[in-house]
Amino acid sequence: MISAAAKPILYSYFRSSCSWRVRIALALKGISYDLVPVNLLKDGGQQLAIIQYLEDTHPTPRLLPQDPKKRAQVRMIANHIVSGIQPLQNLNVLKQIGEKKTEWAQNCIASGFQALEQILQHTAGHYCVGDEVSMADLCLVPQVFNAERFKVDMGPYPTITRINKALLELEAFKVSHPSQQPDTPAELRA
Amino acid sequence: MISAAAKPILYSYFRSSCSWRVRIALALKGISYDLVPVNLLKDGGQQLAIIQYLEDTHPTPRLLPQDPKKRAQVRMIANHIVSGIQPLQNLNVLKQIGEKKTEWAQNCIASGFQALEQILQHTAGHYCVGDEVSMADLCLVPQVFNAERFKVDMGPYPTITRINKALLELEAFKVSHPSQQPDTPAELRA
Repeated sequence: MISAAAKPILYSYFRSSCSWRVRIALALKGISYDLVPVNLLKDGGQQLAIIQYLEDTHPTPRLLPQDPKKRAQVRMIANHIVSGIQPLQNLNVLKQIGEKKTEWAQNCIASGFQALEQILQHTAGHYCVGDEVSMADLCLVPQVFNAERFKVDMGPYPTITRINKALLELEAFKVSHPSQQPDTPAELRA
Repeated sequence: MISAAAKPILYSYFRSSCSWRVRIALALKGISYDLVPVNLLKDGGQQLAIIQYLEDTHPTPRLLPQDPKKRAQVRMIANHIVSGIQPLQNLNVLKQIGEKKTEWAQNCIASGFQALEQILQHTAGHYCVGDEVSMADLCLVPQVFNAERFKVDMGPYPTITRINKALLELEAFKVSHPSQQPDTPAELRA
């Protein structure tokens, strides 16, 4: 969470998609913060509220385009990932699924990525929506990372793959990567 | 989806939480629209992008408070429901769960409502955040309706129950209710 008065504190877990999205937003906006590692057992989309709060209080550089139609595209993509894909392959759900959990996660991600690939073919430039980094991109990178962990075949998603690669070249995405966090275990550091 | 130029068309399914949230937003903002019923097999949080688009293009009455802290509270609550609860009790997921689906849905909703009740005890006035209707309220009402369908015991959630009741008294929430839609089957009409 973000404290409004002093230097913000981010309670973060190195591998959490939600923490990761916020770390990218903080890096893009050049906001310095203290990070307190928390071993999250539970994940969720709730941290998108933090990103919107950062956008409201630190509007530059913007993470939402000015044009209402493009803003809607950014939010559609972000919500598709945050509500439509990620909750279904969360740790808590997978625990309840039991032995078929890898297959379950792969199916959820593949079905979500099929739709996402179609959307991106209409909206993408260098990044998810045109050539500006947006909230949609903050959501894309952690989701592709999850797909790779679950060994999802990325062959059918050339647009997703291309954008993800371009984003990982950017400094804000490098410093916020799970392999670079204070709570990253030694064997996972890059 | 909303067409920017002419009278907007809402592709809606009477019982879909996502369509329902948008119907409430349209009613609150007094935007007239054509409704095209679609029998959705698949649900999701994607339609929250439409609500944000409506907020961007029709700012009055606002569905997000002006104060950044309150805005963050509204978005936290909306995202908690849209990403943290609803995707786990969707038709598609329940089909895959099979015979334990009612128990699964009840557990997902109960665990989400426990957290939500705590949050609302800090944020609520008449409605989810203070005394203004917000995006959080648009998300609350459909989720309580789902809880009732799955016969979740609402006893432990007095704040959720009180706010839901207050919201259902408002005209915008009445006209957008699943029991009042052109595609509502006769036996479910109120």
